[in-house]
Amino acid sequence: MHFPQIEQLDRAMEPEVRRHLNSLTKPVGSLGSLEEIALRLSLIRREITPVLGKKLVYVFAADHGVSGAGVSAYPKEVTKEMVYNFIRGGAAINVFGRLTGTEVLVVDAGVDFDFAGSEAASSPVFLDKKIGRSTKDFSKEPAMTAKQAERCLEAGFELANEAHRKGAGIIALGDMGIGNTTVAAAVGAAAGLPLMKLIDIGTVVDAASLKRKYRLVKEALKLHRPNRADALDILQKVGGFCMGQMAGVILQASSLRIPVVLDGFPVTAAAILARIADPHVCGYLFAGHRSAVRGHSIMLGRLGLSPILDLGMRLGEGTGAVLALSIIEAASRMACEMASFESAGVSKGHEAL
Amino acid sequence: MHFPQIEQLDRAMEPEVRRHLNSLTKPVGSLGSLEEIALRLSLIRREITPVLGKKLVYVFAADHGVSGAGVSAYPKEVTKEMVYNFIRGGAAINVFGRLTGTEVLVVDAGVDFDFAGSEAASSPVFLDKKIGRSTKDFSKEPAMTAKQAERCLEAGFELANEAHRKGAGIIALGDMGIGNTTVAAAVGAAAGLPLMKLIDIGTVVDAASLKRKYRLVKEALKLHRPNRADALDILQKVGGFCMGQMAGVILQASSLRIPVVLDGFPVTAAAILARIADPHVCGYLFAGHRSAVRGHSIMLGRLGLSPILDLGMRLGEGTGAVLALSIIEAASRMACEMASFESAGVSKGHEAL
Repeated sequence: MHFPQIEQLDRAMEPEVRRHLNSLTKPVGSLGSLEEIALRLSLIRREITPVLGKKLVYVFAADHGVSGAGVSAYPKEVTKEMVYNFIRGGAAINVFGRLTGTEVLVVDAGVDFDFAGSEAASSPVFLDKKIGRSTKDFSKEPAMTAKQAERCLEAGFELANEAHRKGAGIIALGDMGIGNTTVAAAVGAAAGLPLMKLIDIGTVVDAASLKRKYRLVKEALKLHRPNRADALDILQKVGGFCMGQMAGVILQASSLRIPVVLDGFPVTAAAILARIADPHVCGYLFAGHRSAVRGHSIMLGRLGLSPILDLGMRLGEGTGAVLALSIIEAASRMACEMASFESAGVSKGHEAL
Repeated sequence: MHFPQIEQLDRAMEPEVRRHLNSLTKPVGSLGSLEEIALRLSLIRREITPVLGKKLVYVFAADHGVSGAGVSAYPKEVTKEMVYNFIRGGAAINVFGRLTGTEVLVVDAGVDFDFAGSEAASSPVFLDKKIGRSTKDFSKEPAMTAKQAERCLEAGFELANEAHRKGAGIIALGDMGIGNTTVAAAVGAAAGLPLMKLIDIGTVVDAASLKRKYRLVKEALKLHRPNRADALDILQKVGGFCMGQMAGVILQASSLRIPVVLDGFPVTAAAILARIADPHVCGYLFAGHRSAVRGHSIMLGRLGLSPILDLGMRLGEGTGAVLALSIIEAASRMACEMASFESAGVSKGHEAL
């Protein structure tokens, strides 16, 4: 299949951007991470004053065949029920979306429910990108066909293009689907990360379930032997519809120079897939937060990203990514709106630089 | 002098609040720190759904006699110049105030400049609470008189009352004044914290200045021997006008059950003073962020507070506190706006509580 062309993030503008940031009325470097965020926004957008513009979060919902294997504390029906909660505005992501002025769009990537003719189908925030009604149970067979894996990525490309047409200046990603942390662990392990460190509680609480989850993924990897250098192969064998679509959004958004904000474990697994397809994506990614899911930090390390927030959250839905948008927006506004020492008539100190 | 009555934060409502938070459509505890923030807002406000209401930041500006002793990288005139920058809306705190919908009010606690008849004096965001034109150089004499120390606290009480009358549901504090980190280190050390760990770069960059700063504070403490159990004594001998006023705001706001969000090193030093006057204030405080100023963490530890943000910032002005307001507001909105499992028709899992 055809992959988007992604430019390696060019740092040639960095000195010019730093000169601008250092001209603003604050001690040099005193806004810490915000200055690094502003710098990267500038490099991505090729602007000294990167106005963030419209903010949007895609919340992907899908079911996972493996959830039948007893790896989650919630019944599978919750995926469908939460889709209704999203479109009615009652979920955490809706609350945070309203707070931060971020449009929340719900993507049916593969929920095991037919929404046709329902309240969801007629909702303006519901996007039908269903690849199938749930993946297969990867502990027994490949999660999806090769064709489905490609269609996942293509759906993601389309979503990035739609966001671009709408004028989105930044895209946050969120995921919801019973079983998704198990799938994310499988994807991470297939990409070469240590499975033991990736398996964590998700919404499972007891040690026995944890052990079952570990064994199940380990056996599945032995069964399918995914090629760690081939994102489509991993996706097909042990992935999820949502993960494939998110990887697609990341690839196409990077190609369009639209920054993407990651959420927790499943979203970051999708970024791992996207990085396998094209390592240049990393220049366009922000890690919204560090999830309380232990394996998340290892994935962020693989991507070379430091999380913006670290609030012990593990809800998913894009909640960490959207809260981080308020910090990213602060960085953008700082670069765009602050007075300079010169314009404000403030004396400069004798700091280095 | 008369100090406000502050109730120890009563945790009797905690089980009821947790039941509410656990009824919302998310795995139990999955919003991490946000749930703890929401809990504390509820306990402070005595409401299960604590609507945050109006947000306000007081940015205190004052000069410090000790700044003449070569402890800062910036000339003293910057304090006055930054006041103009604040009232014109060009500083970082103005940018973040606009972003988060927080009213920014600038308090002249003791800037060494006569604003009478100037653009500042006629600005609606400028509050004249000037105790004097700069404190004295505490390396030679007490920073202020006993009377001035009392007037600082009283001015703080008035500011908390004014915020209350305006309907503020939460107050953020910020500080700006050349030399303020030196004063904050002196206050922290006078309160019994290890001076060596409190002295950090501030806006000073070279090791020689750092050493000079350390010696200067150490000598001053030897000279004045402030009583570590007496906030007014510490304030008078080695404090600053702004620190006294901030301590006053903290004491009176706590008495009015209005939560206060701390910023960095100087604001937290003020909280240390307030805690000496009444340890019950700690229940009403939120640590907005962990400053890059090394000694800040020790002060937060003394207060028993964990920072909400950790972004390597060290600008002051209330910037960390106001960015944290967006997270605190998210916590409030979560408790107030999220659907419950019952209202949304979402199946509950079998998680332990």
